[in-house]
Amino acid sequence: MEVLIVGSGNMARGIGLRLVRGGHRVRIADREPDKAADLAAELGDSAAGEPLDSAAGAEVIVLATPYEGSKQVAEMWAGDLAGKTVIDICNPVDFSTFDGLVTPEGKSAAEEIAAAAPGARVVKAFNTTFASRLAETVRLDVFVAADDPDAKQTVVQLCLDGDLRPIDVGALKHARALEAFQLLHMKVQDQIQGGWSTALTFAAA
Amino acid sequence: MEVLIVGSGNMARGIGLRLVRGGHRVRIADREPDKAADLAAELGDSAAGEPLDSAAGAEVIVLATPYEGSKQVAEMWAGDLAGKTVIDICNPVDFSTFDGLVTPEGKSAAEEIAAAAPGARVVKAFNTTFASRLAETVRLDVFVAADDPDAKQTVVQLCLDGDLRPIDVGALKHARALEAFQLLHMKVQDQIQGGWSTALTFAAA
Repeated sequence: MEVLIVGSGNMARGIGLRLVRGGHRVRIADREPDKAADLAAELGDSAAGEPLDSAAGAEVIVLATPYEGSKQVAEMWAGDLAGKTVIDICNPVDFSTFDGLVTPEGKSAAEEIAAAAPGARVVKAFNTTFASRLAETVRLDVFVAADDPDAKQTVVQLCLDGDLRPIDVGALKHARALEAFQLLHMKVQDQIQGGWSTALTFAAA
Repeated sequence: MEVLIVGSGNMARGIGLRLVRGGHRVRIADREPDKAADLAAELGDSAAGEPLDSAAGAEVIVLATPYEGSKQVAEMWAGDLAGKTVIDICNPVDFSTFDGLVTPEGKSAAEEIAAAAPGARVVKAFNTTFASRLAETVRLDVFVAADDPDAKQTVVQLCLDGDLRPIDVGALKHARALEAFQLLHMKVQDQIQGGWSTALTFAAA
């Protein structure tokens, strides 16, 4: 499968590594093409960098950008994204307080992004997995929420291919719980000495 | 410390076992006093059963009852509970759909219970820990949310005494995230073959 990752930061790298491991072709798109090229080079022969230009050709688009950037890309590419699987991984944290979210009351970033690109089949995933752990080989829980069953199944399969455990939590509205809980996960990192490498998981007995 | 647990179900048992292990005195109160007596007998000499009569004498009250019952007890005992630490453990799941909560939009059960007993120092805790795991000796994560710092510290200490890992997630408003995420934890039990014995945790690397 051809997956276009928007962004070339730590999360783009972590998800890119899992996708490549799963045997998929990865395109890295960034406003700064040099950064995209550098990450693609690190990911290997099945990856390539490009400017932030077009989603044409990609079957799946991963918005590995902060909330505001993801919304902007969704708006900018709205036509291109119709019918495609779009993975929103963001956490709309209010960094001025680190104690709340910047999304409207009762709405998730995922739903806002879906509203910005009508017709896109938006899937919330990877917002609870820290980049450092995605870059390892450990089997992490990836919570997946989406309204479109085919798009959701695509993401579930990408997770399985990358040795991750997808957990289908239901409709896209449940992204609200994923985002709200991940805020807690992030804000307690110092308290639990997590070092941004803890894994949110439903651990078996 | 003297802790009054309202209810004699599985969660009352699990929390009671941890409290007794921590060296605390436990009172079990139930509308059916026989059930309270049975659970107290199982918990041992530091526990006693009683009818659902009064919170007088208890320093901490645990509402180990379903949401509606907890709200009723909070209303009924509102005067008694003023100034006391009241632990709300409930999950206000809409069992008709198992896909949402019955609380008003933007409000947690914990905040509703706090509103029902003004002056009570309400702490959300133990809503993400399954009873079966509390009954073991494993060190579980217990997410704690409260507005009153002293009441929160009391609950943190009770967790530590019971070989649990308390995680302070901040103000009582964050109970919304705890309840919303636990709904997901509960609804995927079949999917992940969890057997109601998984532990929601921030696992270290």
